[in-house]
Amino acid sequence: MKIARFRSGRRVAFGVVMDDDVVEIRGSIYNRFRMTDTRHPISEVTFLAPTEPSEIWCPGLNFADHVEFAATVLSGEAPSVPDHPNPWHKGRNALTGPGEPIIIPKDSSGDVHYEGEAVAVIGKHCRRVTPSQAPRYILGYTCGNDVSDRTWQGEDWTFWRAKGSDTFAPVGPWIETDIDPQKLEMIVRLNGKEVQRCNSKDMLFTFPEIISYISQQVTLQPGDLVFSGAAGVTLPIKPGDIVEVDIPGIGVLSNPVAAEFDSSAS
Amino acid sequence: MKIARFRSGRRVAFGVVMDDDVVEIRGSIYNRFRMTDTRHPISEVTFLAPTEPSEIWCPGLNFADHVEFAATVLSGEAPSVPDHPNPWHKGRNALTGPGEPIIIPKDSSGDVHYEGEAVAVIGKHCRRVTPSQAPRYILGYTCGNDVSDRTWQGEDWTFWRAKGSDTFAPVGPWIETDIDPQKLEMIVRLNGKEVQRCNSKDMLFTFPEIISYISQQVTLQPGDLVFSGAAGVTLPIKPGDIVEVDIPGIGVLSNPVAAEFDSSAS
Repeated sequence: MKIARFRSGRRVAFGVVMDDDVVEIRGSIYNRFRMTDTRHPISEVTFLAPTEPSEIWCPGLNFADHVEFAATVLSGEAPSVPDHPNPWHKGRNALTGPGEPIIIPKDSSGDVHYEGEAVAVIGKHCRRVTPSQAPRYILGYTCGNDVSDRTWQGEDWTFWRAKGSDTFAPVGPWIETDIDPQKLEMIVRLNGKEVQRCNSKDMLFTFPEIISYISQQVTLQPGDLVFSGAAGVTLPIKPGDIVEVDIPGIGVLSNPVAAEFDSSAS
Repeated sequence: MKIARFRSGRRVAFGVVMDDDVVEIRGSIYNRFRMTDTRHPISEVTFLAPTEPSEIWCPGLNFADHVEFAATVLSGEAPSVPDHPNPWHKGRNALTGPGEPIIIPKDSSGDVHYEGEAVAVIGKHCRRVTPSQAPRYILGYTCGNDVSDRTWQGEDWTFWRAKGSDTFAPVGPWIETDIDPQKLEMIVRLNGKEVQRCNSKDMLFTFPEIISYISQQVTLQPGDLVFSGAAGVTLPIKPGDIVEVDIPGIGVLSNPVAAEFDSSAS
């Protein structure tokens, strides 16, 4: 089932995507809900980031082929392959939805990269769950783009702006509830050209392992988002580009790239 | 004015603390509100963390006398006095209120310290404000405890659990709107004995400077919390302790310390 959060006119609602329609639901996507008789053609709604998370989590380096690349970005550090996840918070302010622009800050050096990833959506409060218990706390999976300013990533002590600037967390277009999360092909297209193809089977830590690890000290909340981590080598994006994260079986998250309006420019 | 969030019976409300009462308000603390005729004796309400922030921000090292201490905690790094704030996210899951226990996780080594700090409360959305503009986006100030597991702080790549474990962010008891934020005496008492006395005049970066810096890439939201950073040397806290953060002119944030219930212990 594909569960979407969307805007129709001025109203925000949740629904289930069926063929070319979104069928509105009543109830909570985290508990019980039922379909209503209200259907909207997909072409007439705006899909939003599928949840309003209390936190957005990323696992640190989680693909062997990204470790070497990371060494070139993080100045003065040569990361080794980790023996446990290294969770960090991606700023909630950065969250944005399908179709919304990724805005390059006017004071960025411009070395801003996509990172196309799969994203687990937490369905129930969880604390101190084991990896084998974790799947029952996951509602489903969606697509995410861990947009990253490589200059700030190298300069700063944390990722607060390198990966947490406004609009640097596009997520969507909806949550797929019936899919094997460790067999996801994760494709990125930049202006229609494929620039990344990797598979979640190569994650160093699976989604249940990451979620179990975080849950040892943190209560995860319904709607929280947990990114897979990025694979391989990435490329810069520039104003005017279109970047798509395509995970067959889930959907396509497409975002244009724009420059921040600079009111001080002459 | 002292603005509090509190629970009375099953109801959560905002109010203004006047003498021994809390006067309920109607409206939004971030926009306009008015007093109602409903008064509760302070002794009959439970004060809560004064906002539900979208993010909790800390500035990195922000007192010269804490820099040297930090070098002993962060293995392999000798921090120098920073030339700009180094913002990081304290986990929202960690937020807790006055009187609530700080719970030492059962898998902590036990080297958990208080850090008594002043906390700015954002009152309005702000992005790209200057330090001179920032004060008008600040609603007021409260007390906070940046509870820190020094072992995890040294071991981990980020502060996700060292400073973000559940209950590691006590904040309260209320928001004082009329106070000079750079003249705050910040006192910590452990079991009634004074263990810290420092002053916000010694912050390397003032609250307006920190908020301006973060706002260059991040939209701050009403209710967001910005900690001052800690001063000096801190001490461990243990189950059974009571830790108080006292900022004269604001109030006293008091929390007991407890051990996590370990259901696996015999």
